[in-house]
Amino acid sequence: MNDDRVGFVSLVGAGPGDADLLTCRAARRLADADLVLHDGLITDEVLSLAPTADRVLVSRRPGAKQVDQAAVTRLMIDAARSGRRVVRLKAGDPFVLGRGGEEALALLDSGVPFEVVPGISAAVAAPAAAGIPVTHRGVASAFVVVSGHAPEAYESVLRGVPATGVTVVVLMGFGERRAIAECLIAGGWPADAPAAVISNASQATQVIWNGPLAAVGEALRDAAPHDAHTIVVGDVVAVGAVIARGICPLESRRSHASGSEDVGPRPAVICA
Amino acid sequence: MNDDRVGFVSLVGAGPGDADLLTCRAARRLADADLVLHDGLITDEVLSLAPTADRVLVSRRPGAKQVDQAAVTRLMIDAARSGRRVVRLKAGDPFVLGRGGEEALALLDSGVPFEVVPGISAAVAAPAAAGIPVTHRGVASAFVVVSGHAPEAYESVLRGVPATGVTVVVLMGFGERRAIAECLIAGGWPADAPAAVISNASQATQVIWNGPLAAVGEALRDAAPHDAHTIVVGDVVAVGAVIARGICPLESRRSHASGSEDVGPRPAVICA
Repeated sequence: MNDDRVGFVSLVGAGPGDADLLTCRAARRLADADLVLHDGLITDEVLSLAPTADRVLVSRRPGAKQVDQAAVTRLMIDAARSGRRVVRLKAGDPFVLGRGGEEALALLDSGVPFEVVPGISAAVAAPAAAGIPVTHRGVASAFVVVSGHAPEAYESVLRGVPATGVTVVVLMGFGERRAIAECLIAGGWPADAPAAVISNASQATQVIWNGPLAAVGEALRDAAPHDAHTIVVGDVVAVGAVIARGICPLESRRSHASGSEDVGPRPAVICA
Repeated sequence: MNDDRVGFVSLVGAGPGDADLLTCRAARRLADADLVLHDGLITDEVLSLAPTADRVLVSRRPGAKQVDQAAVTRLMIDAARSGRRVVRLKAGDPFVLGRGGEEALALLDSGVPFEVVPGISAAVAAPAAAGIPVTHRGVASAFVVVSGHAPEAYESVLRGVPATGVTVVVLMGFGERRAIAECLIAGGWPADAPAAVISNASQATQVIWNGPLAAVGEALRDAAPHDAHTIVVGDVVAVGAVIARGICPLESRRSHASGSEDVGPRPAVICA
């Protein structure tokens, strides 16, 4: 630790998983960090950007070792007060279903200086990885992003979403995907509305499922439930299925030409 | 131009304006580009990341010189076919109200290989610049992002958004802000719901307006209508007003300590 540095906390978004999709600022914060407190969804590739930091998993993933929220906050504050540069690293964006607001309020109360470094949210990047534009002229001029972890989080929202002109994006809803599809259909969405489930978007393990809304409950039954899954419903999904045919990540082209190992994800696509 | 390169188009998101908020991949694409076709909202700071490229403004901003969409597509395709590395640079994310889907379909039709590089959308980053988490436990488990450019884009969407538990984010709606506020109030939102308008988020010219929903029509009357404006409505805006008191961009701290010029934006906050 450098003596001329004051303790500081950066709440940093790590994006969807590919380390190349961190912002320049986020990558620099990781390189400069003394301590990184990260969620279970953060990939090893992203953590490798903080080679000199202590890296501590403070997962809240079901089934994994839990550290409670108060303990995470305490760790951040204590480390900053002892002069350390702390990065609190969250999948996606800190302010999109990431408890960043709660941690920011706790830091404010403690008097520790902090900043928020945005990240690419899976709400937009996971659809994009499947070629899906969440808005598209003449198809959707809006999109809704909702937490699917429990009915009280999504029911009142999804009941009001019109079945045309809007794209529905559900994060953290894999375990509830059948109930989410039923909620939309009960609200007037057609059973055959185009839907997709994208798992581990932007990563080498990326998988894309495409099918009708009514079949979402059966999507990716063999997937690890605690991986990152994004559900997308709406006519833009059909547009995305076309666009995906033309997408050709530059890194894949380079590796094809040169035989190098610099390969982007090769999405496996599964259709119902 | 390097002879061993094939022509290629990258549809790249530039984020909200601060060049430090581009993804690492986006910054590298700009550094490697032969031709950058960019919108009017792209800042000089971002364009400076492409020092060796031809840079062409293909603005669709009202009042500015217009290049029609078909001409933009033609430019991209012709340049790629002549072996150039083309970056089509869009403010925010290419697939969030940016016509990225249309351009991707045109590239697919032309057979030119392309990729999509996500960017930080102002839909999340502009609220964050004002301290506002678009979701916050116990306050909002969802957010809606809608184009405010015309009533047909937002009315049917905003009419269905419940007045609790959801955050409303409107992009490109500055000119319609009075009608948008009236639409929400007519749909059951309280006239005193917390609202914010963020202009030029993340840039040195950033301005934040805070006030009740009913006063949004009067917000930032002196602002340039064609700057980037983001409207946020919901209880998270009140949370953000608290969080903003603690946010202290690291670059500002450094400049304060060292007297350097490396200063982050110092938001001017205006309250109704």
